[in-house]
Amino acid sequence: MDVKELYEKLDSLMGSTVVLEGWIKNHRKQKEFGFIDFSDGTCFSHVQLVYDNKLDTFEEIAKYRVGSAIRVEGVVIESVGSGQKFEVQVKDIKLMGDCPEDYPMQPKRHSNEFLREQAYLRPRVNLFQAVFRVRSVAAMAIHTYFQSRGYVYVHTPLITANDGEGAGEMFQLTTLDLNRIAKSGSVDYEKDFFGKKVGLTVTGQLEAETFALAFKKAYTFGPTFRAENSNTKTHASEFWMIEPEIAFCDLEGLMNIEEDMLKYIVKYVLDNCKEEMEFFDKFIEKGLLDKLNKLITSKFTRITHAEVIDILRKAPVKWEFEPKQGEDISKEHEKYITEYFNGPVFITNWPKDIKAFYMKLNSDNKTVAAVDLEVPGAGELMGGSQREEDYDKLVNRMKELNMSFEGLDWYINLRKFGGCVHSGFGMGFERLLIYLTGVENIRDVIPYARTPKNCNY
Amino acid sequence: MDVKELYEKLDSLMGSTVVLEGWIKNHRKQKEFGFIDFSDGTCFSHVQLVYDNKLDTFEEIAKYRVGSAIRVEGVVIESVGSGQKFEVQVKDIKLMGDCPEDYPMQPKRHSNEFLREQAYLRPRVNLFQAVFRVRSVAAMAIHTYFQSRGYVYVHTPLITANDGEGAGEMFQLTTLDLNRIAKSGSVDYEKDFFGKKVGLTVTGQLEAETFALAFKKAYTFGPTFRAENSNTKTHASEFWMIEPEIAFCDLEGLMNIEEDMLKYIVKYVLDNCKEEMEFFDKFIEKGLLDKLNKLITSKFTRITHAEVIDILRKAPVKWEFEPKQGEDISKEHEKYITEYFNGPVFITNWPKDIKAFYMKLNSDNKTVAAVDLEVPGAGELMGGSQREEDYDKLVNRMKELNMSFEGLDWYINLRKFGGCVHSGFGMGFERLLIYLTGVENIRDVIPYARTPKNCNY
Repeated sequence: MDVKELYEKLDSLMGSTVVLEGWIKNHRKQKEFGFIDFSDGTCFSHVQLVYDNKLDTFEEIAKYRVGSAIRVEGVVIESVGSGQKFEVQVKDIKLMGDCPEDYPMQPKRHSNEFLREQAYLRPRVNLFQAVFRVRSVAAMAIHTYFQSRGYVYVHTPLITANDGEGAGEMFQLTTLDLNRIAKSGSVDYEKDFFGKKVGLTVTGQLEAETFALAFKKAYTFGPTFRAENSNTKTHASEFWMIEPEIAFCDLEGLMNIEEDMLKYIVKYVLDNCKEEMEFFDKFIEKGLLDKLNKLITSKFTRITHAEVIDILRKAPVKWEFEPKQGEDISKEHEKYITEYFNGPVFITNWPKDIKAFYMKLNSDNKTVAAVDLEVPGAGELMGGSQREEDYDKLVNRMKELNMSFEGLDWYINLRKFGGCVHSGFGMGFERLLIYLTGVENIRDVIPYARTPKNCNY
Repeated sequence: MDVKELYEKLDSLMGSTVVLEGWIKNHRKQKEFGFIDFSDGTCFSHVQLVYDNKLDTFEEIAKYRVGSAIRVEGVVIESVGSGQKFEVQVKDIKLMGDCPEDYPMQPKRHSNEFLREQAYLRPRVNLFQAVFRVRSVAAMAIHTYFQSRGYVYVHTPLITANDGEGAGEMFQLTTLDLNRIAKSGSVDYEKDFFGKKVGLTVTGQLEAETFALAFKKAYTFGPTFRAENSNTKTHASEFWMIEPEIAFCDLEGLMNIEEDMLKYIVKYVLDNCKEEMEFFDKFIEKGLLDKLNKLITSKFTRITHAEVIDILRKAPVKWEFEPKQGEDISKEHEKYITEYFNGPVFITNWPKDIKAFYMKLNSDNKTVAAVDLEVPGAGELMGGSQREEDYDKLVNRMKELNMSFEGLDWYINLRKFGGCVHSGFGMGFERLLIYLTGVENIRDVIPYARTPKNCNY
């Protein structure tokens, strides 16, 4: 039986014999009794196992070390100790897998840096039990949200010959022998696996648009890559993105979806990860639950980029970077704005020169119908836009930017063959997890993070 | 309103005015009437739009070409024509996006080869509307199955320095400038992004095991890569895999899960993609629905590899490859066995020399506790095993195979730190889709397939 099931059916199991399989998290031995803090990983709560010296195997069990895998047979009884609802009175314990004295995950506080180095063992400690279960449940929330609303989940390709939006540096992919290239003195891409230079995608958006123009509503949820040499708390070289694209949807409609989706995910995680979220609220970010509960019922602010600059310029703050009309805003500005409105803020109509080529040009010819969602504590959580559906305007913009049309003809053609108003956004999954858990470093919400000079496991 | 909603609420909408947005799939014009075959991609069924010459815009509407995006306002009425339950009597149509005469997706039969070349438009035709919706729904079935049973979804890394099981050729990943390597005559991996040679993963299993030993039940669902130069109907360079890993689970338990999961997915897809599955049954694989309905209620055969060889050797068949004890079986053997048992077959206890290093050695010292699931028509659908949980046996096996321990120390250590009986399997998602849809070529169940010398979009 899973411990999760034991908790769910506790009332009816009182007095019954159960069999559990899992691991010893802590072990206190006394002369007449022993207490094992036991978990099988199926839920955040542990079970207290109690064994006494009337058992033939008392001496043997007393030797079992922290980290060992065991199979327990015991009776569910009301706990005589404080705090706990029940405990399991051991009838028998079988050792399934031993664990040595020098097991790194001893029951004490470890630094996150140490745990990163022991990434293959850290899912066993409370913090990462909570983080990675929330990661899993949040992923399910996202799929449930979109699928129950008729979106088609599309697996866009990761290996690609186009550089997407030019959003970032790409990893190159090859089956050519680099040493042979060094020896021969030349690179022959015709001999490479795909017969040309290819890399790992930075976005699935462009391909997702082809699905939106066939299924009306589509979304991606998959890995994305950046070969950027930045060692910050919010950058990883491999991360997961959600990229919905919706036909016959304008910027207002897009914001409605973003707001609705975020509230849905937050509520889903609060409902399905109660203990984990309480843990984060208590030990990682005080006030987390308040923040999230408030989000669910609040109406997100919607404001233009120009209005944001006005507010920033009037603010009684000495900025590191001076806010200016027509220019991008910095992290300090994002922070101020979410605090100013005390909640999530949609910033719309950005200067075209700081946004991507495919965003719809507004009638002022200066701004594009783009929207960023800024949330307190995590900054930009989503970025989206209405897509330029006008063939000529899209081509002109690409020419202005000196972009190559090679490999993007199909994307442009979407505007020729029944193209229509359509919009989409991207949300970094890890950014969402940082917001949901209060964990600050992206390395701590990814099972095996990839960052510059770091690719273990 | 989505067409899906219109169908769902049809009875209550009869006589009401609705607004629909979507595309013209076909257009027949007569003197007094016009008929538009209309779809918005939200469900497999189309809607017939009828407009007559009493409309001021009759002449204008009559010009709208196949492929155009339109916004329709009309009244839901009972159909006077044959076959259809209802049609929409047009009050107004607005052109949202034009489409030229030379639009490639004209309403006629196209070859799959042609459609592959037009991959960005093919989601608009019936076959691929059906395929890619089933792909999306099947993905949801998988997540729902595992999440509702308490599995943790883990995103295992795609960029990796270890070659997994040695299961296949890897793509190399680099940020080094190949032309510079050619010029300089040397390769300096210390200057590469991760400071060493890395590639794209061939499996997430090894990392998934670390999660099973923390959460008891874990699964991956993500992209996997093979740089194999094979141009067959069943091979792609980029595909999606599902890899569940379960602690305290032996080979029998694993087969129970595989069987239960497959039945669940099949039932889920049959329930949620009724029209699409009927389309496949009618046009792609006659008898598909019978095959799948039978699977749901059948008990899968369980038989050892040695028994299979016996059956094959006694079979009145002239084999291309002679079946032999201790050796692998070929496609013709797989086919014979599933036909012999007239359904899915689990083949267990394979000769260790043809299976991976991590599989649990049986007491005969010759076979391993591995299991392949063979299904009629699609061959091997899943491959799994009990994992070797014995530290010494695992290390010995790796030595026998002259494997390097570098980068795999953590994997071996799992056997030291509370290791226990555990098992897992892998299922190729596209293999499943081929089985579910009857579509024969893997290129036709992947939105943008990557194969040797082929990386467009």
